[in-house]
Amino acid sequence: MRQSLESENKMIESISESPLYRIANPQSIAFFGASKNISGMGTSILGSLQAQGFEGPVYPVHPRDEQILGLTACKDVRDLPEIPDLAVMVLPTRVVPEVLDACGEKGIRQAVIVSGGFQEVGPEGADLQKSLLAVAQNHGIRLLGPNCLGVANPHHKLNTTFLPNNSAPGFIGMASQSGSFITQMFSYLDHYGMGFSTGFSVGNEANIDLVDCLEYLGACPHTRVIALYVETLRRGRQFIETARAIVPHKPIVAYYVGGSAAGKTASLSHTGALAGPDRLYDGVFRQSGVIRAHSMEELFDFCLVLGTCPPPKGNRMVIQTHSGGPGAVAADACSRNGLEINPLGKATLEALAPYVPSTGSANNPVDLTFSRNPMDFFSSIPKILIEEPSADGLLVYFLIPDSVMRRALDQMGVPTEQIEGEVRKIIHAQCQSIYDLQQQSPKPIVGFSFMDRNDRFISRMVEMGFPILESPTRAARAMAALYQYTQFQRKLVKSA
Amino acid sequence: MRQSLESENKMIESISESPLYRIANPQSIAFFGASKNISGMGTSILGSLQAQGFEGPVYPVHPRDEQILGLTACKDVRDLPEIPDLAVMVLPTRVVPEVLDACGEKGIRQAVIVSGGFQEVGPEGADLQKSLLAVAQNHGIRLLGPNCLGVANPHHKLNTTFLPNNSAPGFIGMASQSGSFITQMFSYLDHYGMGFSTGFSVGNEANIDLVDCLEYLGACPHTRVIALYVETLRRGRQFIETARAIVPHKPIVAYYVGGSAAGKTASLSHTGALAGPDRLYDGVFRQSGVIRAHSMEELFDFCLVLGTCPPPKGNRMVIQTHSGGPGAVAADACSRNGLEINPLGKATLEALAPYVPSTGSANNPVDLTFSRNPMDFFSSIPKILIEEPSADGLLVYFLIPDSVMRRALDQMGVPTEQIEGEVRKIIHAQCQSIYDLQQQSPKPIVGFSFMDRNDRFISRMVEMGFPILESPTRAARAMAALYQYTQFQRKLVKSA
Repeated sequence: MRQSLESENKMIESISESPLYRIANPQSIAFFGASKNISGMGTSILGSLQAQGFEGPVYPVHPRDEQILGLTACKDVRDLPEIPDLAVMVLPTRVVPEVLDACGEKGIRQAVIVSGGFQEVGPEGADLQKSLLAVAQNHGIRLLGPNCLGVANPHHKLNTTFLPNNSAPGFIGMASQSGSFITQMFSYLDHYGMGFSTGFSVGNEANIDLVDCLEYLGACPHTRVIALYVETLRRGRQFIETARAIVPHKPIVAYYVGGSAAGKTASLSHTGALAGPDRLYDGVFRQSGVIRAHSMEELFDFCLVLGTCPPPKGNRMVIQTHSGGPGAVAADACSRNGLEINPLGKATLEALAPYVPSTGSANNPVDLTFSRNPMDFFSSIPKILIEEPSADGLLVYFLIPDSVMRRALDQMGVPTEQIEGEVRKIIHAQCQSIYDLQQQSPKPIVGFSFMDRNDRFISRMVEMGFPILESPTRAARAMAALYQYTQFQRKLVKSA
Repeated sequence: MRQSLESENKMIESISESPLYRIANPQSIAFFGASKNISGMGTSILGSLQAQGFEGPVYPVHPRDEQILGLTACKDVRDLPEIPDLAVMVLPTRVVPEVLDACGEKGIRQAVIVSGGFQEVGPEGADLQKSLLAVAQNHGIRLLGPNCLGVANPHHKLNTTFLPNNSAPGFIGMASQSGSFITQMFSYLDHYGMGFSTGFSVGNEANIDLVDCLEYLGACPHTRVIALYVETLRRGRQFIETARAIVPHKPIVAYYVGGSAAGKTASLSHTGALAGPDRLYDGVFRQSGVIRAHSMEELFDFCLVLGTCPPPKGNRMVIQTHSGGPGAVAADACSRNGLEINPLGKATLEALAPYVPSTGSANNPVDLTFSRNPMDFFSSIPKILIEEPSADGLLVYFLIPDSVMRRALDQMGVPTEQIEGEVRKIIHAQCQSIYDLQQQSPKPIVGFSFMDRNDRFISRMVEMGFPILESPTRAARAMAALYQYTQFQRKLVKSA
């Protein structure tokens, strides 16, 4: 890792101080590389930008085509009626430096260079990247890329990535050394009720790097949690310092690829990055207070829980279930990830007694087997459990199959045409009840279920912003990450 | 673990030799515990049985209610017009032994005891379980349970579990010490194109245990892979011997809970099982040739790949992608799980050259970035890669968003009303092409994608039976499990 000499910590206080500010929040855009060829990468990206509903003017620049996706194109950047805040380039590699130069002449000071073919392809590309950088420095241009997908900032209706983003603006601020993990995760995140506050694809990081993004996201008011996809850290010391300044008030999760032999080779040909040994990165993350995830799904599982729950004061968890197996798995997974599952106190057991049938168990996991009044599972029971003084958080298993509810209502004689409405009413009441409890609780509550994300109960909970993970193991690991954040916060506040 | 004195290996050759045969394939059923109370557990289970379309006669037995879910009930088991093959009991604990005795008098020789309140609740329950067993032995009754959910055998239209099973008969034979992991996984499995051949919930294993199920499933012609959810092994030596006899011709995957402090406590109150140290179980599984999974999702991921792919001859994998990040993650995850990612041979590189654009990389991962003709990604390219002599298997990343295809067709001027049909046609052709390749290939091909399971491409592939996992990490781990099976097979065939 390259280490800079300066070590003082000059964190920005507002995103407007960041070189990324105008890149993530441009008022106007010059677009290079869209054309009449509708299957071209540039045209697709312009399509994404339009689909997101970007509100400022967008100026396509093209030497021949006059109309591009309904916009009037300009033959030359010099002819534009104003100086756009941002240039987005999806051009053949060899012309990029000269077009950037023309942009600089025009007065443009920010750019997203989508084009690849630079450092990641070998020595010749590296030379070209140097020329590109020289042009940028000459004009004082700050740029993201090359070999990147730029920015998705749904709060600003900006999307310079390949795929359209139909999900709501969210709370994950991401910086990624793979553009795929910005643009290809839109609908994945949507299924969990998450979304990006701002997502940066940093590409080859020729001019703006992961640390710059970290700084921006640390100050970004829409960002509740920061996600990093890392193939290499080019500025190790600054990474540590920046992270340590952010973590006391905002969690950071990183997924590092490159610690294995194959990962290293793959990331070299991907972004020209030189990965380091796994253990070194483990140490860097620990020292930085950065929570380490071990897969993409874990990265976002952790973000979901960190972005929606208060961190627990300690590591003692209660598990609420009506099924023994999922309860046992959750308990085992908690144990394996540093969380404790202790017996409940006397007062809690007494309060719980009326709700636990003879087939159930008030041991922790609290396995109810069934509830006489199904609503109790979403109201009285979790309310009692969250008040257990020796517990720091609650994990709840959900299984509410529409089909069973529908069958029961049918057998109760509810007229067929009313069943759908009744099911919806019941589910909404259940969701509202446990959601309200979660909102008022100073302790984290995390749900888990094997049900489909499109199931009505799950999708309603997701809509409300309640974290539900797809298995007891994933829920336990995410809760452990939340507790790790508590520990990092304490350590860094103390050392500050 | 209790160890029996007999050690010779007497494997059954046909399921009809198993004590489970009539339990899993009854011609007629006496049902105890369903009533007019539609929300009762017994009534729900009878409802599941009816919903599955069980074809033999079902005789509800109830002292008072005369009509139950449209069936005429019988007041006493002694009055039944025939001797049913199987009794299913969902009765209050205390009456179970006497009802079982009456069943024995009638001549019934198989039972599923759903009722709980036996060994899992403590010494008093343990005594009651002894009485139950004495009754069974007295009449020569073989029983599953107590404290279980019985059997789901969709091939025989049988389902004695709590939830209705709407998925197609499948290839996973499962024995589970949690009924939830049979009944609550029906729709989960369906989303992956899997399903149970037969699923046994063994409960307290008073009379029939996991080893009996293993033996049955080893001989079951519908079962391609065996899944085990284990909280304890009550007959260690027999487990090892039975597994070792099965593994040369059928893979077994086990998920063990109970290795941690909390897991141990949870499983004790769940099924009265005494769990052992994690390392001991690790050794038992390795000696048995049983692949160990570390979560429920991993258990079924492994089953999917083991049930649909030939095991690879070696551990050398090729990764095909058009996105760098997912490719790098897959390579890293392969490396971390004992799989090798090597450069391709000269002949393969030459064959591949026309398909790799200048932005792409023919290193392994083969990152195409894009394909001039999108169909190549599903036909020519994987065909070349699967023929690489130094590769033992292929992992392929899929990202085919309907929305982009729809947008492209729209911009190409395809009339709006034809777009849906065109999209379907293209997707079906892509699926068919790679599916055919997989069917002909002697090497395993496993897909991965972050797309929703309900996306058209994914659901079509799932429908066809092509394995697609939800992330590169999950796909790599499942491929590693498949290779582990190759190794276990070799070891056990050699030692036989």
